[in-house]
Amino acid sequence: MSPSAARPTIWRNARLATLRPELGGLGETEGGAVAAVDGRIVHAGSQAELPTGLGDAQVVDCDGRWITPGLIDCHTHLVYAGNRANEFEMRLAGASYEEVARAGGGIVSSVRGVRAASEDQLVKETLPRLDALLAEGVTTVEVKSGYGLDRESEMKSLRAARRLGSERPVTIRTTFLGAHALPAEADGDKDAYIAKVANDMLPAIARDNLADAVDGFCEGIAFSPEQIARVFDAAKALGLPVKLHADQLSDLDGAALAARYGALSADHLEHTSALGAEAMAQSGTVATILPGAFYFIRETKKPPIDLFRRFGVPMALATDSNPGTSPLTSLLLTMNMGATLFSMTVDECIAGVTRHAAQALGLGNEVGTLEAGKWADLAIWDVERPAELVYRIGFNPLHARIWRGQ
Amino acid sequence: MSPSAARPTIWRNARLATLRPELGGLGETEGGAVAAVDGRIVHAGSQAELPTGLGDAQVVDCDGRWITPGLIDCHTHLVYAGNRANEFEMRLAGASYEEVARAGGGIVSSVRGVRAASEDQLVKETLPRLDALLAEGVTTVEVKSGYGLDRESEMKSLRAARRLGSERPVTIRTTFLGAHALPAEADGDKDAYIAKVANDMLPAIARDNLADAVDGFCEGIAFSPEQIARVFDAAKALGLPVKLHADQLSDLDGAALAARYGALSADHLEHTSALGAEAMAQSGTVATILPGAFYFIRETKKPPIDLFRRFGVPMALATDSNPGTSPLTSLLLTMNMGATLFSMTVDECIAGVTRHAAQALGLGNEVGTLEAGKWADLAIWDVERPAELVYRIGFNPLHARIWRGQ
Ligand SMILES: [Zn+2]
Ligand SMILES: [Zn+2]
Repeated sequence: MSPSAARPTIWRNARLATLRPELGGLGETEGGAVAAVDGRIVHAGSQAELPTGLGDAQVVDCDGRWITPGLIDCHTHLVYAGNRANEFEMRLAGASYEEVARAGGGIVSSVRGVRAASEDQLVKETLPRLDALLAEGVTTVEVKSGYGLDRESEMKSLRAARRLGSERPVTIRTTFLGAHALPAEADGDKDAYIAKVANDMLPAIARDNLADAVDGFCEGIAFSPEQIARVFDAAKALGLPVKLHADQLSDLDGAALAARYGALSADHLEHTSALGAEAMAQSGTVATILPGAFYFIRETKKPPIDLFRRFGVPMALATDSNPGTSPLTSLLLTMNMGATLFSMTVDECIAGVTRHAAQALGLGNEVGTLEAGKWADLAIWDVERPAELVYRIGFNPLHARIWRGQ
Repeated sequence: MSPSAARPTIWRNARLATLRPELGGLGETEGGAVAAVDGRIVHAGSQAELPTGLGDAQVVDCDGRWITPGLIDCHTHLVYAGNRANEFEMRLAGASYEEVARAGGGIVSSVRGVRAASEDQLVKETLPRLDALLAEGVTTVEVKSGYGLDRESEMKSLRAARRLGSERPVTIRTTFLGAHALPAEADGDKDAYIAKVANDMLPAIARDNLADAVDGFCEGIAFSPEQIARVFDAAKALGLPVKLHADQLSDLDGAALAARYGALSADHLEHTSALGAEAMAQSGTVATILPGAFYFIRETKKPPIDLFRRFGVPMALATDSNPGTSPLTSLLLTMNMGATLFSMTVDECIAGVTRHAAQALGLGNEVGTLEAGKWADLAIWDVERPAELVYRIGFNPLHARIWRGQ
């Protein structure tokens, strides 16, 4: 993932949605151009103001197309083996959750799959899902572990995730999610398992530099705020930023917990209260909205978008791509769901997969807007206006995807 | 669209979802093969029972992949000019329907677009949408007029629709939907406009053989059952089958009206009563379910799937692809919506885009199942089980698409 040493490149005759916050809206520039040197943007703005000294640059005529920052999927569980179409089919045919569980379904089936798979197999099964994201202009993807639930299997998942970034031209950010679910062999002892996550798995993962952040699932069916806090304390001690699956099915004050730890993001948030939203605003924690899971599990309680607006909490949008509750590999469709299901505006949806998604990954200075100094990660679109990216359903107007200038 | 005169072809080493009703479920056959001669299936079943006399056939090894009938989108408004992303954006930003209308939005904007566009332009703008469907294994598409609303513009739309079938390897079925909305120049006189549809437009369209069927929109905001009946009487007199946009926003007994005319299908049906469903069962009218519009306009009343099951009404699923209420060009996603939003089973969803969609177009003897005598329209999939076609969201596992043997 070294920066490109290729010729400078200029994309000219374009319309830019720079997403620069000081410009308001989408930060739109007509008659625009982007120039990149060594994979970094050196100019993104008016074509008339292109810097001199790019004489040998390769010039690409964009024919008036729109350029946005490359899209960022900031919350995925992309690495797994097999899929869970069978339990989806059973449930639609009327089977209860118990019957699905007796048939070996549920998260335990994903844990079984990941434990049995080799690292190579995990990479191989994940690549088609990653390719589906990239085909829609995605240039940065976060990938969580959390289907291993023992040290070796979690490390294997994270190594597989890291390898995606050498198999494809994309930036991968890995997140350790040992506190995802209790494995069967823990025999119901959540405290003992959390101690293992914090004191055994996490140090080994940090030592091998396998995770860029640490995540947890704070919910009645998963772990309590106190248990999550132990994982976060361990993460902080190792210098790793945290994030949280919070308030998805009930309000356990997960948003406030995340804020207390200065989390990069709190995610899901269907049940978050005004106090939680206010705490997130104060800590600069991004609200990552996951409409795919809401849609797939037929949730009815919507996240409090109005509260996030009122308190000025930046909102990201992500696929939550996973085999159990969001088998979704389209960030464009995710934007449409944000608008259709949660009434997010077009500008909010597009910022949610660019600038705010970058912030949710701690990459706000590197990607997410078109401005000098950031990586030249671009998506070039065959649309007449950026709103079409949100409006269309099951249609991919990507013209070209550029990662680090190429 | 003449049948292929190419060499016979055998697709071997495949798993077949034949959709033959007498086999139950998806009519699955392991160790299967399909053979085609002159574009027609001569065998679809056990590989061991392949007929002799195909000695010079081209043989394709499917490596155990699944083959389904080519998918059929039996309800689209695919031909239009421009799009309505702008009003989508306005509405999300808080504009009322009135404000959108004052800004030139709503169906009148599509009518303006179609009237202003040349036939060539309509074809050109429609092809990317058609290509999105074909990329997911679609081999038959129904296309309605209804944004012209005067004789010349309706005929132009239907000619453009017909031309799609010579631009791409796909079967196009056209439907005249003059009774879609009242054009502004009719000045509120619905009866006079309906007389024009029935006595002026329809005969001209029939004379030029531009429509395979006739459709109407029976709703308070569109036309009454009595007005629709006048159009249907005219269609019947010309020997054209009918179908109906029925009971979408209110129960006007549209299903029963459609049944009374022996309609091929009644479509939408959110508000259909038990009497309506029973009438459809008796007339053999297919219930075409359109979850994309339900999703996009945030409808909450679901179509009575249980009633259709109870009375044995065959259910089709279609995109309703249109710029105002369903800018959707993915039939795979449509299946997921049928399952997720309406709890249709996997088998119902797959039959809904194959066998039952064929029936909804009056093509039940030509396409929609894998059996000898039908066109060799196939979709070959990189999946382990057909349920994955319904389960995944925003992912396209198509391996190959075959239209009429090629
Ligand atoms: Zn998640
Ligand atoms: Zn329609």
